[in-house]
Amino acid sequence: MTKTRAGSFFEDYRIGQTLVHAVPRTITDGDRALYTALYPTRFALASSDEFARACGLPRSPLDDLAAFHVVFGKTVPDISLNAVANLGYAEGRFLSPVYPGDTLTAVSEVIGLRETSNRRSGVLWVRTTGFNQQGEPVLAYVRWVMVRKRDPEAPAPDPVTPTLAEAVPALELMVPPGLDFTRYDFALAGEPYRWSDYSIGERIDHVDQVTIEEAEHMLATRLWQNTAKVHFDATIRDDGRRLIYGGHVISLARALSFNGLANAQLVAAINAGVHANPCFAGDTVSAWSEVLDKAETLAPGVGALRLRTVATKAGAPAFARLDEAGKHRREVLLDLDYWVLIPM
Amino acid sequence: MTKTRAGSFFEDYRIGQTLVHAVPRTITDGDRALYTALYPTRFALASSDEFARACGLPRSPLDDLAAFHVVFGKTVPDISLNAVANLGYAEGRFLSPVYPGDTLTAVSEVIGLRETSNRRSGVLWVRTTGFNQQGEPVLAYVRWVMVRKRDPEAPAPDPVTPTLAEAVPALELMVPPGLDFTRYDFALAGEPYRWSDYSIGERIDHVDQVTIEEAEHMLATRLWQNTAKVHFDATIRDDGRRLIYGGHVISLARALSFNGLANAQLVAAINAGVHANPCFAGDTVSAWSEVLDKAETLAPGVGALRLRTVATKAGAPAFARLDEAGKHRREVLLDLDYWVLIPM
Amino acid sequence: MTKTRAGSFFEDYRIGQTLVHAVPRTITDGDRALYTALYPTRFALASSDEFARACGLPRSPLDDLAAFHVVFGKTVPDISLNAVANLGYAEGRFLSPVYPGDTLTAVSEVIGLRETSNRRSGVLWVRTTGFNQQGEPVLAYVRWVMVRKRDPEAPAPDPVTPTLAEAVPALELMVPPGLDFTRYDFALAGEPYRWSDYSIGERIDHVDQVTIEEAEHMLATRLWQNTAKVHFDATIRDDGRRLIYGGHVISLARALSFNGLANAQLVAAINAGVHANPCFAGDTVSAWSEVLDKAETLAPGVGALRLRTVATKAGAPAFARLDEAGKHRREVLLDLDYWVLIPM
Repeated sequence: MTKTRAGSFFEDYRIGQTLVHAVPRTITDGDRALYTALYPTRFALASSDEFARACGLPRSPLDDLAAFHVVFGKTVPDISLNAVANLGYAEGRFLSPVYPGDTLTAVSEVIGLRETSNRRSGVLWVRTTGFNQQGEPVLAYVRWVMVRKRDPEAPAPDPVTPTLAEAVPALELMVPPGLDFTRYDFALAGEPYRWSDYSIGERIDHVDQVTIEEAEHMLATRLWQNTAKVHFDATIRDDGRRLIYGGHVISLARALSFNGLANAQLVAAINAGVHANPCFAGDTVSAWSEVLDKAETLAPGVGALRLRTVATKAGAPAFARLDEAGKHRREVLLDLDYWVLIPM
Repeated sequence: MTKTRAGSFFEDYRIGQTLVHAVPRTITDGDRALYTALYPTRFALASSDEFARACGLPRSPLDDLAAFHVVFGKTVPDISLNAVANLGYAEGRFLSPVYPGDTLTAVSEVIGLRETSNRRSGVLWVRTTGFNQQGEPVLAYVRWVMVRKRDPEAPAPDPVTPTLAEAVPALELMVPPGLDFTRYDFALAGEPYRWSDYSIGERIDHVDQVTIEEAEHMLATRLWQNTAKVHFDATIRDDGRRLIYGGHVISLARALSFNGLANAQLVAAINAGVHANPCFAGDTVSAWSEVLDKAETLAPGVGALRLRTVATKAGAPAFARLDEAGKHRREVLLDLDYWVLIPM
Repeated sequence: MTKTRAGSFFEDYRIGQTLVHAVPRTITDGDRALYTALYPTRFALASSDEFARACGLPRSPLDDLAAFHVVFGKTVPDISLNAVANLGYAEGRFLSPVYPGDTLTAVSEVIGLRETSNRRSGVLWVRTTGFNQQGEPVLAYVRWVMVRKRDPEAPAPDPVTPTLAEAVPALELMVPPGLDFTRYDFALAGEPYRWSDYSIGERIDHVDQVTIEEAEHMLATRLWQNTAKVHFDATIRDDGRRLIYGGHVISLARALSFNGLANAQLVAAINAGVHANPCFAGDTVSAWSEVLDKAETLAPGVGALRLRTVATKAGAPAFARLDEAGKHRREVLLDLDYWVLIPM
């Protein structure tokens, strides 16, 4: 009998099933340095312990998206090893900052199952929660993927499609305890724009672009202990290309958004996210954002912006997202709807 | 007079000579993070401080092979700068875990010398020991290399061929003080298989594959401060390719072995190792293992498996190692015989 | 109104103007590990906490050039986003070692302005100072760049060309408090040569060469949070190549200089520096040095060497720097004039 993991297939999942994901991971300053080397990120709160302390935090937290990737990575062997496609995210909430020294684990619950019409696969919805070593949840999100069936003839479970919030309500956004932006240093942070300077519907071209190398996305994806074969093995696809982990594009887009959103210091929620087209090494990525909504929070000086950030291949027309049929254009790599925290 | 180091030649070595290798190196959490980014490693003990504490260690140790590479790197300027080939390893023993904050140094003793028949080179055997800042040995191994002579006419020393153990005896395996696998969490570690689930002769295909990039093997090899020119300088070989440090393939194979050997938490010994064929960027590497032997240890719940792990280029036939003449097949990159510690 | 930063143009600068650069950056052990992975550096003081303590420092400092790159990176959005060329450095002084945990910020003062004859651009001189979290200066340097004008018709400021020292006087070199080389361990450091072994006019070929990959220089340049587009975006130049950050070549040359200058443990000053020709991925870099001057310091056992280190593309004739017209040869990438501290 083989001891290697073949991964689970659609018919292996049951509604309510709990998946305890393997391999806890201690976060260190090394992860922070690598995140800086991998993405052109400059948000002051994740860059400087002193800036973080001036904002009421004990020290500089790990970039929220790095914490997301670590938790996501743990789920891959149990959820997406036989996935055909990563279909979407919803109800993503960042619940507590992660600091170097914290050890993360992850658990998922199966909340939706629906066989596809051709009976060869099905859509699986899971709600994943990442925990620190105190057992406190640090982030949670719903993700759905299309998973192959081992046997097309296997009976389908009763279809369950979960009802998901179109966006995390502003009132439910978690602000890290102690966070205080009332004495925020805009000069040190790099831009003068505060919450009140942004208006709903406003669009920002982030200007900067990055051409991606194979070594970079593989270093990143391994750092998150994400084992999906397509990211590492050039012999899988007929064209010899390695598919880039979608989260790599999320972090790239967020880092590029510094130019115009330098004060959007923390990601508070992911409302929705679609990897509209595959990304490969050699692609040059640019990003633009649109302000979808604004909200206040109860924390001193802390406001929230709901943003849509779109990553595209370089050369795409400005602010182009959907084609005439309402589908994502070919040049769109990522369409991410999320909340950020920004000084009022 | 030039101040640059030309390296030593075969006729410069004497039996019993002690080589104190230069440049002590302090290990940090940064090294741990980079190891995770460079190799698809997921062994829980080297990934999580909490998991390590639950197994009786003070915190997560540096991956054993990373410690090996750091020690090996120090020896390169004194031993293999003029090496024609790295011929083998034996009697490798991991004596004490290395933790972030430890500073490593290395010393080698010349234990064998034998001129080759064409008088242009000779085989040099050294026993290398790595020490931490307390002067405690952390690992030791014998390595032999073919070294060029400066002058083919130089007189050859009396040939001395050391007698080397075919394998480190199970009774001599060092278990880190305090290591206790009696309350081991198999779910968190990622696989249910314990010592008793493995049988001698069993073979495991580790399934996963990785395509190597130039930037990755150079980052790794520099991290170990290994200065051998062939790894970095594309102008050395006529074909413009950089030879990948053999240790990079060892770490890659060990990381791939997680899939099927997730509970083989520590490397206790290296019995033998051969870099059967050169590895270059663009190669896609896969690995399989065979259980060669089993042993108990005196530590609570800790068993030992003697494994052969073979790294090959992708596409090699399953479990193929030797050709009809008993030599390594062209697709074999690494043939490593080693002991691991695993819960009983 | 766009919120993205267009950068400043020549006519935006005024003599005496102070630029407070954004995004403070906390240095960690992760930065140290990445520096080791990115450059083939082996200087013992920056490699080993134990070696540094034996030399009177509290622990191993961050490589001086890494501190320089972090400070330099902060200045890019304010100074060189619209730069046509980086023209030179002078009066660079390393004032206090940087240790993991320190947070760096940077401030520049405009000290020179001179419009070019075609009125399309001008030369901008700034004196930049990096500070740690205690407000102590850690390094300072003058840099001049050619900056585009927004409007060629804009009036030119009165030309001011600062008077710059040809070299930092030996008497003004800062030695880190406590540094003591009287019990220096040459064997551990890797070479036997002390201050008295070097003579003015002596030239050293550093022998080793490194072929550069795109992923490597981008990882490094991002680590310094340097956002200049030309380093990351392959669509900017017609030839699809990314220009390598000049500081990457400085660090590479300094690391290669270990072979022959292993005891040149600290960089004390940068007297002058020119990036004579652009460097691109695929280039194989070699380096040689010339001893320009020697000086004693007041610190116990600590001497200073003034060096010229020249980085060239591989294959350049030995020690070739200038052509018959007195200009840098095409193969010369870097011509750096600096002071190092070395045991007497």
